[in-house]
Amino acid sequence: MNIIDIITKKKNNEELNYEELSYAFNGYLNKQIPDYQMSSLLMAIVINGMNLKETISLTDIFLKSGDQYNLREKMDNVVDKHSTGGVGDTTTLIIGPMCASLGLKMAKMSGRGLGFTGGTIDKLESIPGFRVNLSKNELIEQVSKVGFANCAQSDDLTPLDKVIYALRDVTGTTESIPLIASSIMSKKIALGAENILIDVKYGSGALMKTKEDAETLSDYLKKIGAYYEIKVECLIDNMSNPLSQAIGNAIEVIEAINVLRGKKCQLRDTCIEIVAKLLVMSEGLSEFEAVKLAAGSLDSGKALNKFMEFVAHQGGNIEDVYLSEKRIEVKAKHDGVIKNIDALGAARLAAKLGASKMTLDDTIDYSVGIYLKKVKGDSVKQEEPLMTLYVNNYNVELNDEDFDFIEY
Amino acid sequence: MNIIDIITKKKNNEELNYEELSYAFNGYLNKQIPDYQMSSLLMAIVINGMNLKETISLTDIFLKSGDQYNLREKMDNVVDKHSTGGVGDTTTLIIGPMCASLGLKMAKMSGRGLGFTGGTIDKLESIPGFRVNLSKNELIEQVSKVGFANCAQSDDLTPLDKVIYALRDVTGTTESIPLIASSIMSKKIALGAENILIDVKYGSGALMKTKEDAETLSDYLKKIGAYYEIKVECLIDNMSNPLSQAIGNAIEVIEAINVLRGKKCQLRDTCIEIVAKLLVMSEGLSEFEAVKLAAGSLDSGKALNKFMEFVAHQGGNIEDVYLSEKRIEVKAKHDGVIKNIDALGAARLAAKLGASKMTLDDTIDYSVGIYLKKVKGDSVKQEEPLMTLYVNNYNVELNDEDFDFIEY
Repeated sequence: MNIIDIITKKKNNEELNYEELSYAFNGYLNKQIPDYQMSSLLMAIVINGMNLKETISLTDIFLKSGDQYNLREKMDNVVDKHSTGGVGDTTTLIIGPMCASLGLKMAKMSGRGLGFTGGTIDKLESIPGFRVNLSKNELIEQVSKVGFANCAQSDDLTPLDKVIYALRDVTGTTESIPLIASSIMSKKIALGAENILIDVKYGSGALMKTKEDAETLSDYLKKIGAYYEIKVECLIDNMSNPLSQAIGNAIEVIEAINVLRGKKCQLRDTCIEIVAKLLVMSEGLSEFEAVKLAAGSLDSGKALNKFMEFVAHQGGNIEDVYLSEKRIEVKAKHDGVIKNIDALGAARLAAKLGASKMTLDDTIDYSVGIYLKKVKGDSVKQEEPLMTLYVNNYNVELNDEDFDFIEY
Repeated sequence: MNIIDIITKKKNNEELNYEELSYAFNGYLNKQIPDYQMSSLLMAIVINGMNLKETISLTDIFLKSGDQYNLREKMDNVVDKHSTGGVGDTTTLIIGPMCASLGLKMAKMSGRGLGFTGGTIDKLESIPGFRVNLSKNELIEQVSKVGFANCAQSDDLTPLDKVIYALRDVTGTTESIPLIASSIMSKKIALGAENILIDVKYGSGALMKTKEDAETLSDYLKKIGAYYEIKVECLIDNMSNPLSQAIGNAIEVIEAINVLRGKKCQLRDTCIEIVAKLLVMSEGLSEFEAVKLAAGSLDSGKALNKFMEFVAHQGGNIEDVYLSEKRIEVKAKHDGVIKNIDALGAARLAAKLGASKMTLDDTIDYSVGIYLKKVKGDSVKQEEPLMTLYVNNYNVELNDEDFDFIEY
C-alpha cells in the first residue's frame, strides 16, 4: 500500500476501504506518514466526503488507537451527552447532577475552549482546587459512587483522534461531517455509555452552517452508534442565541448553581428537556413522567446536592469561586423590545474581556464575563441596564459595536 | 490575512486574489507557512480548481520569486519548446540544433526523470564530460554564439515553483491543470523566449488523462502567454506510443544523432513538424516553406554540425557515449503485424533494466535501454527480432509480461 495512491483515490472521489484508512491514519499516529501528506488527505476528505461505511471504518480506527473503558459492562444505566458547541452552554454541570440524582450514571469527558467556543473544562477550572484530570480507576470509582464525574479527555482514549484534531485545526479541515462524526463517536464509544444524547448545533457560529448539515451529521451519529449497538439520539438546535444569560467561566458555574437552586429560565428548560430524553431512552419512561422527574430533581434540591458531592469529590471549593469585583453596567440607549441576542457577538465580547483563549499561548481570566440582564422578548427602557460586564481592568477598550449583538 | 481563511476560501470553491495567493505561496517559500498548511491548500486547488485569473496570479508569483533572464531583450528570434512528457522523447536534442542551424536561438532548461518519465538532463549526462549546469552568463553567451544551449533548471529561476513541485510530488497533488500551467509557464517566462511551442501529451501514462484536459491546459498556457505578450502555441498529442525506437539514455542520444544524420523515421517527422511550427511563428514563413527548411537542416548536415558544436561547447565527448555490450534479442513468438506499442509498458521495461530512477535514491545506468526493431504497422515473422535490450547484467529477471507492451 502507498500513501500517494490512497490520497489520489480520495482526490478522485473514490471510496477508501478499512485497510487504506488504517494505513494512512495509523501511519500518521506512528509518525510513518508525515503531516503534509495527512493534511492533503484530510482536505480531499473534507471536499469529497466519506460515505457511512468509510466513516464507521475511521471511527473504529480512532477507537482502537487507544484504551476502551467499556463503562456499560461495569455498571447499569450509563448515559452520556455531547454538544457540538454553544455560547453560554453550561448544561453539562446541571444535567450531570440531575441524572445522578435520578439513578443514571454519567462519566463525562469534556474539552477546553479555543477562540470563541467555551470549554467545560475551563469552566470547571474556575472552581479553586478542582481536579480536571482523573485516572481511569478514579473516573470509574467516582461514577459508581457519586453517579457523575466530569474530567478532561484522557490521553489513553483515542490518541489518534487527538493528533488528527490538532492537525485539522491548523489546516482548514475542521468542517467535515464524516470527520466530525468519527471524532465525536470514537470518544463516546471508547467510554462506552449505553445511551447517548447529542445536541447538534447549527448556525453561523457553529461548525454546521445549515439545518440540513446538522441533520446529516445526526444521521451519521445515530448510524455509527447502531453499528456499535449503542443508542444515540440527537437534538438539533439553532445556536444563534446564547444558551444562558451568563457567558464566561466562573459566571457560568454560578449560573449553573442558580439553576440547580431552582431558578426558572431558558437554561433550566433546556436541561429538563435533555435529562427527560435520557430518562426516556434509558428507563423507557413516558415523556410526561420523564419531564416531571427531571424538573423534580431540580425543585427538590437533590440535583444541587449531587453537584456539591461531585465538586467536592474532585477537590473543588465552590465557596471560593471568584467573580471580578470590577463591573461595568451597559445601559440601553433607547426604549425597545429585545429582538435578538447574537451568540457569536456575545462570545466575541466575552473573549475581549479575557474569558477565552484566542491563541494557544493566551491565558484565561476565569473571573471575567458577561451577564445578560435582558433576554429575547423583554422590553427595555432607555438607561435601563442591558448587561453587566465583569472585567479585570476598567481600561478595557470598548466601543458601541461591541454591544451591537443585542438588537432592540 | 490568515492562512486558515485562505485555505477555507478555496475549500469553499471561492476565488483567491493575488494578495491571498502571494501570502500563502511566498509565505511557504519564506518558511512562514508550514508544509502541512500548503499541502492542504494545494489539495483544495487540485479538487476545486483555479480560474484563469488565479492561474495568472500564481504564475506571476512563481515568476517573481526568482531571477528573470529576459532573453528576448538580449537577442532576436529566441524560441523555446516544452513537452509535458513522453517515452523515448529525445526531440529537444534534435530540434535545438535544427533551430540553431536555421538562425533561431533556443535556450532550453530541462528536467530529470523520475519514475517512468525520462528526463533530457539524464540523457545529456550519458555523454561523458557534458556539463548540465550553466550559469546565467554562460547560458546567454552560448545561445548568442552557438544558437542552442541545454542545461538543468537553474536555482535562480522560479525557486518557489521548485519547492511547490517537490511538495506536490509527495502529496498526491500533481494532477491539476492550473498548477501544471503555472509551473510550466513561470519557468518559460523567466527565461523569456519570444515564441514558445508546447507539446501537450495526453493518455493513460500522461499527466493529462483525456484530450479535453489537454485542450484545457493548452488554452491556459496560451492565455498566460498572451498576458505576458509571449506567443504560445500547442501541439496536442496522444502519448500512448513511444516517440522513438530508442528508450533509455545513451541509446536516445545515439538515436538523436541518427536522425541528425538523416535517418527517416517517425522521430524525424515529429521534429520537422515542431521546427516548422517554430519557424512559422517566429519568421512568418508559410508552412510549406517552413517544412522544407526544417527538413533541409537535417539533410544538409547543418543541424548535425550544430549538435556537435553544442555538445563540445558544454564539454561533452560524443565519441565516448557508451552503450552496454551485453545485449538480449527479444524475438517474435508468432507471425503477425505490429498493432500497438504501449509507451508505459516500454518505459516500465526500460526502468526495470535500470534506465530510470524509481526513487530519489536510485542511480541511473546510462548504458542500458531498449531498441525497438519493429514499429507500428510492420509485419513480423516468428523468431524475427522484435527488440534489442541493452542490459548491465544478463541475470536481469525478465518474463513474458515484460514484452506484452508490443501487440502483434
